[in-house]
Amino acid sequence: MKAVLEFIDANRARFVRELVEWVAIPSVSSDARHGVDVQRSAEHLAAAMRRLGAGRVEVWPTPGHPAIFAEWLGAPGKPTLLVYGHHDVQPVDPLGEWVSPPFEATERDGRLWGRGVVDDKGQVLIHAKAIESFVATAGGLPINVKLIVEGEEEIGSPHLDALLREHAGDLAADFVCVSDTAMFGRGIPSLCVGLRGLVYLEVLVEGPRTDLHSGSFGGGVMNPVHALATMIAGLHDEAGRVAVAGFYDDVLPLTAEQRAQIASLPFDEEGWLRSTGAPAAWGEEGYSTLERVWARPTLDCCGIGGGSQGEGAKTIIPARASAKLSCRLVPDQEPDDIARKLTAHFERVAAPGVRVRVEVHDRARPYLAPTHHPVYEVARRAFSRAFGKETVFMREGGSIPFVRTIADATGKPCLLMGFGQPDENSHAPNEWLDLENYHLGILSAAYLYDEIARMPVG
Amino acid sequence: MKAVLEFIDANRARFVRELVEWVAIPSVSSDARHGVDVQRSAEHLAAAMRRLGAGRVEVWPTPGHPAIFAEWLGAPGKPTLLVYGHHDVQPVDPLGEWVSPPFEATERDGRLWGRGVVDDKGQVLIHAKAIESFVATAGGLPINVKLIVEGEEEIGSPHLDALLREHAGDLAADFVCVSDTAMFGRGIPSLCVGLRGLVYLEVLVEGPRTDLHSGSFGGGVMNPVHALATMIAGLHDEAGRVAVAGFYDDVLPLTAEQRAQIASLPFDEEGWLRSTGAPAAWGEEGYSTLERVWARPTLDCCGIGGGSQGEGAKTIIPARASAKLSCRLVPDQEPDDIARKLTAHFERVAAPGVRVRVEVHDRARPYLAPTHHPVYEVARRAFSRAFGKETVFMREGGSIPFVRTIADATGKPCLLMGFGQPDENSHAPNEWLDLENYHLGILSAAYLYDEIARMPVG
Repeated sequence: MKAVLEFIDANRARFVRELVEWVAIPSVSSDARHGVDVQRSAEHLAAAMRRLGAGRVEVWPTPGHPAIFAEWLGAPGKPTLLVYGHHDVQPVDPLGEWVSPPFEATERDGRLWGRGVVDDKGQVLIHAKAIESFVATAGGLPINVKLIVEGEEEIGSPHLDALLREHAGDLAADFVCVSDTAMFGRGIPSLCVGLRGLVYLEVLVEGPRTDLHSGSFGGGVMNPVHALATMIAGLHDEAGRVAVAGFYDDVLPLTAEQRAQIASLPFDEEGWLRSTGAPAAWGEEGYSTLERVWARPTLDCCGIGGGSQGEGAKTIIPARASAKLSCRLVPDQEPDDIARKLTAHFERVAAPGVRVRVEVHDRARPYLAPTHHPVYEVARRAFSRAFGKETVFMREGGSIPFVRTIADATGKPCLLMGFGQPDENSHAPNEWLDLENYHLGILSAAYLYDEIARMPVG
Repeated sequence: MKAVLEFIDANRARFVRELVEWVAIPSVSSDARHGVDVQRSAEHLAAAMRRLGAGRVEVWPTPGHPAIFAEWLGAPGKPTLLVYGHHDVQPVDPLGEWVSPPFEATERDGRLWGRGVVDDKGQVLIHAKAIESFVATAGGLPINVKLIVEGEEEIGSPHLDALLREHAGDLAADFVCVSDTAMFGRGIPSLCVGLRGLVYLEVLVEGPRTDLHSGSFGGGVMNPVHALATMIAGLHDEAGRVAVAGFYDDVLPLTAEQRAQIASLPFDEEGWLRSTGAPAAWGEEGYSTLERVWARPTLDCCGIGGGSQGEGAKTIIPARASAKLSCRLVPDQEPDDIARKLTAHFERVAAPGVRVRVEVHDRARPYLAPTHHPVYEVARRAFSRAFGKETVFMREGGSIPFVRTIADATGKPCLLMGFGQPDENSHAPNEWLDLENYHLGILSAAYLYDEIARMPVG
């Protein structure tokens, strides 16, 4: 390990430069205009994996964006670790709010700023650089490693299920490691043991055939923006609960033990609020902020639009309005069931003067880790060695469809070992990666491989 | 008159061509990129007025867009009529919904389609072509005519008050005629005797400093779109009344006579609803549709925006959201007073988790005509002669700031003699002008000048 750790220290600057190069490819999976860039991003990574001496590197096409698969199987008799990441990134709008260009990753204040630096290209490279450090110093890895890096995480991984089924044999492993989450706080090594699921849908409201003059017609017909606003306003009750029939039916209540564990974390509520810039916290009554964002289901409007939005004062009754909504789900809520309940809700409450249509887009199931499995203790130890600090268990409010999918498909435990920060702006302008974390992340991955090598196979 | 009428008939096609030429200048006053076009439009009209032998033609600059003034004072001892119109037009978005390009006016089905064909370039030309017909056949007009065509009507006429004060002497007249309204229905000559006023404002809601990941933060902070939607949903009560304290304080109730007059009109409620394309009518309880759109105040959201609206499923809590609102006002509501009440309302109801700001844009005062004045009987007769049908009194739900402004400034009666149609799409894609109305409009203006020439001066 000594040579490995020295190699990681010695190549610190180069490892950052290689991340900057990859970030320069704008692999925005949700925008059809960037389809060719997602492809380029996949080929860029595949080429890098080939240089690391992988026994096999493949670009796996899908009906959407491609995934990369690579494997190092030079440790017979040792456990096999499947590492997951994604190489696609979120859109960058509003572009004007970026301090430096999103695809020209820039170093400032010990951080690297750019789209994808932490979500998730930086975290994929953490593993790639740990692998490189073993290969360069020891000629190979102490365990078997398989890497799958998909290109559709930011659009809900629509083809991942099929890919997993098709390549079930290729992906067989003893443990899975996902590095796509954030740490509990600066310098606190954290294993994430719970993820929320997702339903993403769009509500479209149509009234008049065309925009109408608000003078000639105002007072005569229902305004689609008002109809939509009324529906959105009615989605929560006064206690901040989602007011959709059956929404909470399958929610597993938090156990006293879970609540105590969450309450034991050194959560800086004031600092958290300051980091959001919001004037006050808000949410479902009866739960702490951490409980609300980790372990309670939510419904948020991600966007709304209708009528005149540009310069000037256009005096119209808009013909239509629409809103995008994301629900974050917790065990045992099922995305399809929640989508059905929401659709029925909107159809029921629609005002008579408008037509309402609901389109369901992405879905992801929630995840809770089997923390009694010994690999969590092993990972906790590896992580603590790299950071020189006690590792905590946390949850994450976001969704990583792959985790639940592969957990169900393989029955193997997933280690959610993330190196981001809660305020990293991963889906907003000015995404950043703490460069110290990037370095300690590479050390953590190296320690993890080293620790897993000592586990019994089976 | 015979020669005048024959000239109008003989030049029908050319009069349409000249309108097409003017419409080709995209004089969108609300869009700074079209500033030069509004200037070109003014110069185009001024040149045309010079060719009609006006005694004086001037382009009057303002801090915004210019107005054109022209006068024909060759009828000493006869009344002076001041004609008002505007040469600026509404924006064209959404451009994709136009069947033919908005600035290439196209004839289809007896209609001319294009931006400004009826609102208001076509109606300005109706007077210009009536003037031309007298000048070409009789060598001059039977009355004195002054024409003012402003360039800022569609943005609320911000500099018209100052222009009126500055040019009070130039604009002195016995009567005012405004052709910027619609007829009650196809082929029904109509004098408009009431206009609604306007307050246009924007509500801006800010929450987090930047867009937040809806997974990591969902359930933790108030979503600005929800806060805005709740405020919009609360703007009307269940009876469709505006739920803002004091909103109705100064509304003059409709008299029994006014209600009877409105009820006597041949209003095709079903056809009206069909023309909007809305599935059902809606509005304040206790009033007929015509009463609601003509004589009751309203509040409409003209546009709303916030967060993700493009392609893809961006999973965020938006940092901000905003809405544009127009209130249509009736006598004796005052725009400034209503703006204050709305601002106070929004500040009072804002959720604690967001910051709310209100910006007041346009204002216009409502108007009721003094229909007891004999000029209304004269205009009614002229109009009926051109169309061969009884002229009706109607109101209009839209706002024409000039009317109230000049009515207050001069104390003279305003004739609102419009040639549009209620479903002309004047503020929407596919604006159109009935070409038969355009022709009959020119005849009507000629008859009006002829009738007014027989009125006593004073």
